[in-house]
Amino acid sequence: MIKLVLVRHGKSVWNVENKFTGWTDVDLAPEGKKEAIEAGKKLYLNGFNFDIVYTSVLKRAIDTANIIINEMHDNDLIIKRSYKLNERHYGALQGLNKQDTIEKYGEDQVKLWRRGFVMPPKLTMDDPRFPGNDPLYKDIDKSLLPLSESLRETIERVSSYFEEEIKTELLNKKNVMIVAHGNSLRGLVQYLEKLSEEEVINLEIPTGKPLIYEFDDKLNIINRYYL
Amino acid sequence: MIKLVLVRHGKSVWNVENKFTGWTDVDLAPEGKKEAIEAGKKLYLNGFNFDIVYTSVLKRAIDTANIIINEMHDNDLIIKRSYKLNERHYGALQGLNKQDTIEKYGEDQVKLWRRGFVMPPKLTMDDPRFPGNDPLYKDIDKSLLPLSESLRETIERVSSYFEEEIKTELLNKKNVMIVAHGNSLRGLVQYLEKLSEEEVINLEIPTGKPLIYEFDDKLNIINRYYL
Repeated sequence: MIKLVLVRHGKSVWNVENKFTGWTDVDLAPEGKKEAIEAGKKLYLNGFNFDIVYTSVLKRAIDTANIIINEMHDNDLIIKRSYKLNERHYGALQGLNKQDTIEKYGEDQVKLWRRGFVMPPKLTMDDPRFPGNDPLYKDIDKSLLPLSESLRETIERVSSYFEEEIKTELLNKKNVMIVAHGNSLRGLVQYLEKLSEEEVINLEIPTGKPLIYEFDDKLNIINRYYL
Repeated sequence: MIKLVLVRHGKSVWNVENKFTGWTDVDLAPEGKKEAIEAGKKLYLNGFNFDIVYTSVLKRAIDTANIIINEMHDNDLIIKRSYKLNERHYGALQGLNKQDTIEKYGEDQVKLWRRGFVMPPKLTMDDPRFPGNDPLYKDIDKSLLPLSESLRETIERVSSYFEEEIKTELLNKKNVMIVAHGNSLRGLVQYLEKLSEEEVINLEIPTGKPLIYEFDDKLNIINRYYL
């Protein structure tokens, strides 16, 4: 049986400060580290081990993955980072306090931006928050980097990465874990379970709780559960 | 041109305490973290970037690699861990203070163990310091795990890993960094430069200083320098 494990990183310092984070590279909060330790312990006690671990290039996901791997005493594995697993890019909302944004734009508008398929205001190319101005993305063609994303663009980015990179590894019976973000994982779950836009909007993946998929040889889902 | 970068991890807390470390999984000392930051900055300023980064499974090497990669703002890379890049296993000397050991066994004997091809006293299989009793090595056949190693066994282990794993990647023009330990890197340098045992004994690779190899298409060394 083929298994895939998805983990949403634990609470970050900006979750705690109630800010729109997106691609901002903030640290895990102490509580987020504890969530990662718990996830690692559970995976270890349930006999999981991994051949390949995918993470975004944001340190809250990388650190979560490293903490989990340490707790699992896992060995001889590959860790692969890609910006394609990054959180949804929140455009000009990144760095703003969510409550302030609600007061400025109204609750309905902010709800549309947060949960749905409406794109937040775009950055300009000279904004320091545009990934093209961040050395972390120096090797990526600027035209591929977002000025803002609705959930649709995030889903497109994540599912094409899954198609191009991760699918072959699963078909080769590799044990895979993906450690990523609320919205990039929602995108992945939509793709895997063929959910409607309505269903994705109502989908909430809890932080630090391993979500296990079991597939048959053709990657049809047999089972799906939280550990 | 094919490039390979070797980095010896920075000072660990047991280097500071002057103990035989070997496979004991100790943390980097604050000074060691600084060395890693410096190494990463130098590599970044000199335009290096990597496709694959190899580390041992010991956290002082893993943490050094992660710090370097962060400083380099590197992206879309693979990190691969293997116990075959671990430090030399120091057998029953692991955990002992070097000065105490000299007082007990004499300076000449300890020098033979430290620098040369003489195997330190072996552990018994029930010793908690035997890797077979450490969950980190749970997936490795116990008969492959050492009770002690002379530099010869370390060289054999590291060079066979290079032959089986790393060579192909270099021949495919991948940019590779290996972050490992004093003795595992001495073994690798001996293998790459075909040094005699005498030359290896006198070889000292400094911590945190990237050692660059440039090869032609057939992996003949064209150039070798410290950054």
